[in-house]
Amino acid sequence: MISIIMGSKSDYEVMKGAMDILDKFGIAYEANVLSAHRTLGETLSYVSTLEDRGTKVIIAGAGKAAHLPGVIAGHTLIPVVGVPIKTSMMGGMDSLLSIVQMPGGIPVATVGVNGALNAGLLASQMIAMENKEVFEKLLDYRREMKENVLNDNKEIKKWRD
Amino acid sequence: MISIIMGSKSDYEVMKGAMDILDKFGIAYEANVLSAHRTLGETLSYVSTLEDRGTKVIIAGAGKAAHLPGVIAGHTLIPVVGVPIKTSMMGGMDSLLSIVQMPGGIPVATVGVNGALNAGLLASQMIAMENKEVFEKLLDYRREMKENVLNDNKEIKKWRD
Amino acid sequence: MISIIMGSKSDYEVMKGAMDILDKFGIAYEANVLSAHRTLGETLSYVSTLEDRGTKVIIAGAGKAAHLPGVIAGHTLIPVVGVPIKTSMMGGMDSLLSIVQMPGGIPVATVGVNGALNAGLLASQMIAMENKEVFEKLLDYRREMKENVLNDNKEIKKWRD
Amino acid sequence: MISIIMGSKSDYEVMKGAMDILDKFGIAYEANVLSAHRTLGETLSYVSTLEDRGTKVIIAGAGKAAHLPGVIAGHTLIPVVGVPIKTSMMGGMDSLLSIVQMPGGIPVATVGVNGALNAGLLASQMIAMENKEVFEKLLDYRREMKENVLNDNKEIKKWRD
Amino acid sequence: MISIIMGSKSDYEVMKGAMDILDKFGIAYEANVLSAHRTLGETLSYVSTLEDRGTKVIIAGAGKAAHLPGVIAGHTLIPVVGVPIKTSMMGGMDSLLSIVQMPGGIPVATVGVNGALNAGLLASQMIAMENKEVFEKLLDYRREMKENVLNDNKEIKKWRD
Amino acid sequence: MISIIMGSKSDYEVMKGAMDILDKFGIAYEANVLSAHRTLGETLSYVSTLEDRGTKVIIAGAGKAAHLPGVIAGHTLIPVVGVPIKTSMMGGMDSLLSIVQMPGGIPVATVGVNGALNAGLLASQMIAMENKEVFEKLLDYRREMKENVLNDNKEIKKWRD
Amino acid sequence: MISIIMGSKSDYEVMKGAMDILDKFGIAYEANVLSAHRTLGETLSYVSTLEDRGTKVIIAGAGKAAHLPGVIAGHTLIPVVGVPIKTSMMGGMDSLLSIVQMPGGIPVATVGVNGALNAGLLASQMIAMENKEVFEKLLDYRREMKENVLNDNKEIKKWRD
Amino acid sequence: MISIIMGSKSDYEVMKGAMDILDKFGIAYEANVLSAHRTLGETLSYVSTLEDRGTKVIIAGAGKAAHLPGVIAGHTLIPVVGVPIKTSMMGGMDSLLSIVQMPGGIPVATVGVNGALNAGLLASQMIAMENKEVFEKLLDYRREMKENVLNDNKEIKKWRD
Repeated sequence: MISIIMGSKSDYEVMKGAMDILDKFGIAYEANVLSAHRTLGETLSYVSTLEDRGTKVIIAGAGKAAHLPGVIAGHTLIPVVGVPIKTSMMGGMDSLLSIVQMPGGIPVATVGVNGALNAGLLASQMIAMENKEVFEKLLDYRREMKENVLNDNKEIKKWRD
Repeated sequence: MISIIMGSKSDYEVMKGAMDILDKFGIAYEANVLSAHRTLGETLSYVSTLEDRGTKVIIAGAGKAAHLPGVIAGHTLIPVVGVPIKTSMMGGMDSLLSIVQMPGGIPVATVGVNGALNAGLLASQMIAMENKEVFEKLLDYRREMKENVLNDNKEIKKWRD
Repeated sequence: MISIIMGSKSDYEVMKGAMDILDKFGIAYEANVLSAHRTLGETLSYVSTLEDRGTKVIIAGAGKAAHLPGVIAGHTLIPVVGVPIKTSMMGGMDSLLSIVQMPGGIPVATVGVNGALNAGLLASQMIAMENKEVFEKLLDYRREMKENVLNDNKEIKKWRD
Repeated sequence: MISIIMGSKSDYEVMKGAMDILDKFGIAYEANVLSAHRTLGETLSYVSTLEDRGTKVIIAGAGKAAHLPGVIAGHTLIPVVGVPIKTSMMGGMDSLLSIVQMPGGIPVATVGVNGALNAGLLASQMIAMENKEVFEKLLDYRREMKENVLNDNKEIKKWRD
Repeated sequence: MISIIMGSKSDYEVMKGAMDILDKFGIAYEANVLSAHRTLGETLSYVSTLEDRGTKVIIAGAGKAAHLPGVIAGHTLIPVVGVPIKTSMMGGMDSLLSIVQMPGGIPVATVGVNGALNAGLLASQMIAMENKEVFEKLLDYRREMKENVLNDNKEIKKWRD
Repeated sequence: MISIIMGSKSDYEVMKGAMDILDKFGIAYEANVLSAHRTLGETLSYVSTLEDRGTKVIIAGAGKAAHLPGVIAGHTLIPVVGVPIKTSMMGGMDSLLSIVQMPGGIPVATVGVNGALNAGLLASQMIAMENKEVFEKLLDYRREMKENVLNDNKEIKKWRD
Repeated sequence: MISIIMGSKSDYEVMKGAMDILDKFGIAYEANVLSAHRTLGETLSYVSTLEDRGTKVIIAGAGKAAHLPGVIAGHTLIPVVGVPIKTSMMGGMDSLLSIVQMPGGIPVATVGVNGALNAGLLASQMIAMENKEVFEKLLDYRREMKENVLNDNKEIKKWRD
Repeated sequence: MISIIMGSKSDYEVMKGAMDILDKFGIAYEANVLSAHRTLGETLSYVSTLEDRGTKVIIAGAGKAAHLPGVIAGHTLIPVVGVPIKTSMMGGMDSLLSIVQMPGGIPVATVGVNGALNAGLLASQMIAMENKEVFEKLLDYRREMKENVLNDNKEIKKWRD
């Protein structure tokens, strides 16, 4: 099971990129809005339950001074994937640096700004290491992406004719 | 009383700028190394004691993905002054953005990179609002700074003769 | 009493975030448009009256080469909270650096870009240190924020069903 | 088994941070210098062997226009942890953006600039999901880190006496 | 012949700036959508054919962690012109640094963000070194640009009258 | 007389900020579109005439790799005021750095991004040093600005009632 | 006469670049250490005397949140040349943006980071507009610079033989 | 023949990276110190001779507001390779943006900061398009680089034993 946590309801539009891909692969997940500052107690209580419930990966998205992924990462040994949400400060540089620049000892696996799709894929790849079925679905997904690129290639060739 | 918290022993050299100024003004403080990631439980327990112990200001310094000031700020109503510690990432830009760009609802009063002296002064000014003695000492300090500038002015005038 | 000063009428839309929160908490404030460059004399005269009139905090917002908070801070011992107004230069980086990077001796308590709400909350927290009523209102506000997050959490859970 | 790949021999000093932690946890790894530009064929051949050899995580470090982690990630479903090596361009901003900003479809789990220790820990956490022994060692490591912070706390308290 | 390669169909709108200028100069080109991550095999196979087919320049455009130009450059001795596609991360800074900061040994001739027109011109100038006809057309193009500036000059002079 | 030079007709909307203020002060000027790259010969010929024609200041605006102000500055001893035009690269950071970071020996008096109004004012101030009438008009302009701030101040005070 | 003002004695090493060039050209100047925050009253009093004393240009250098040039510029109509002093924050980006990004109405003629030599030259060029002697010295200086480049050119040609 | 032009003698240490590689490949070149601002006339005169003298590529290096490559590019149809010299402003960001962000119509083939070696290789690749001998030497160089990586790989493997 994968746990998706976002710092604010307004992050939902971005974070559903991760949910959609997990749905596609048939990987169970649960999604929560939980804040590192406004509901820290609830966040930590919730995170404390995840190891026993067999959670394999946590995906946490947050913006601006984005502390949520790092605070969660300090509270569990489950790998945490951080998604920096785009802001107006240099296109999300504040979110990115707040998530990726974790001090030594507590890592957050950071993806690109608004990279929820990639967070979902990364979580799926971690699961696929022990799950043949998900592995096959990821292979299919890559084949599909490849087909799309090759089809796009055919299409743009027509545009110049 | 003022509480000074730093994320790592290596921040001490910077953070003692705050301690020195509080010593100078005779303001009581206590200093702790506490981490938002490695000792979150201890950090929160400690912070929970501060309101009842009459703490007026918390000064928190941290570097890189600097979550300490924000996490503390979410756990107390005591004003938190954040000190971004200099790093090699654009001169501390990661620390600065991680501290100052707090989402709406939980403010951190941020000073400049390595600005522990200013954090100590800001805390002193907050205390001075209700403490005539500290107010007078701050006035003296400003007079002293002014004298120093005026003396420096005299000195550099000689250098060109 | 709190004094809110903005460098230009065009900052009003941002700065009313501070006024709204002070209204909510029943904290008296006055708001002025005053410039560090165009009306420096009037700005300094006005600031000079604030200590005797019992002002506890000054909130100053400005954009671009934002000198207003720092110049005010150099002219009074009342704590100054600086609000960097968003600009097109890297999303307000010019305003942020012009406010937060104050030289040693004269601090400005800086909040995030367009963070007027947080400036209002920070000022309220400073007042709450000596004012039980405001302290209670801040506690309520935090409870409210927490409730909102928990409600948002319930809501997004429905969206995926 | 974990595979550590670095783009240049000069990255070794940084990347051994990952090797040391894996040694400490008794996790097998192999380390290679392989380039995305100078030995792309060898890099891809090598990566192609990793799935069958039971590799659970790849750690790839590179600097400047750091393509190595992304190119590897496109060639395997094994999770790739990217380590941006510090450069003089804004403290490694070029390496960081080249690694973390991967387009949708091919994620790289990015850690902070020079964050090889964290890359090693992240890989260990992924392995710990299925390996009780590593899990216990990670718990010990966290306890150790916590002890260190608490000891540092005791030490700095003495410095001010 | 010139080969134009873009990482995604969505780059077409930018990249046709290069195609239009080559059309204007009567320089043969072929355009492909090919990805460094999703279709690396196809990309390398395709690039391997280009030397024998007499390709003089490759123009490669990509955005975000833009590895396409560098990966191609490592696989051929044909000069590669890189076009960083604009993104929301500081206006394309991620694309620019991912392309221009190539490590020693494998150069990419980088133009400005979204600079496909300039990429087309640069390729034309390389061809013009051995092709008098293209040289003359480039001279005409420069004369035309000059005329346009001089005409614009006349026009704006009228606007103030 | 003041000479206003812009690198492209598209800069006109910004640069007329300078023309409007000079019109207001009754200072003669002439405006030209001239490029450092596309019409360098014409630009240099034109600039060469300016000293003998009694030009007191040159205002030059350009965007992106903005070489126009610096190239002009190297070709005359008339003070050159540079106006960086806003671009999408970090809000005009490319234009700003290309203009302000001139090497030792050839200065450009740089104003803020899109700061044509300030360029016009700066030129007027230079002229006012020897021209009592312009000096008085600048004094009036400052009084006017001050009045506007004071009026804005009155206005926003009403908004909260 | 030219007035050179610096925010701190530590700026002297940089600012003497301006003094040396004025000495070379025989232009009278006076140098002062005066702060926009620590000695604002003295700064404004001093600046108020400058118009009557025939000052033609003010050169003001400051670092970090560098308000000195802008505050002076708002208090006089004498043209103000701003020198951003290098800091560790992205190489002086804080000083640069604090000086150059002045709001509309109050310009500061900004030179590059640590560009005191260029500030001295810019001031000399302003004076040269009405002073034939200084104009000739500037011409000589340019000739000298040109000779130096041509001599350097001869020298490096030998190095490769 | 290749022409190497640098803006200042102090750029020589960097620029000899290009000379060394051309020496290695037996490609004739000449090197000059010429400035876009201090010796613009000489620079343009020199560049005007290059087409007739059969120059295939120009390599131009400059730092800070680095106008030299762009100004040369506007004066000839010979392809210009620009080398941004490292500065203290964000590690050479000023030089990079001043060179790479050329407006439409006049391209500069930009390499990374201090990338003179890559500039030499890029020029060699352009020449190799028509010169079998240089092509072979470039192939050898790539083989050599590959060998070095493979040898480095062997070496680091020993370090961990």
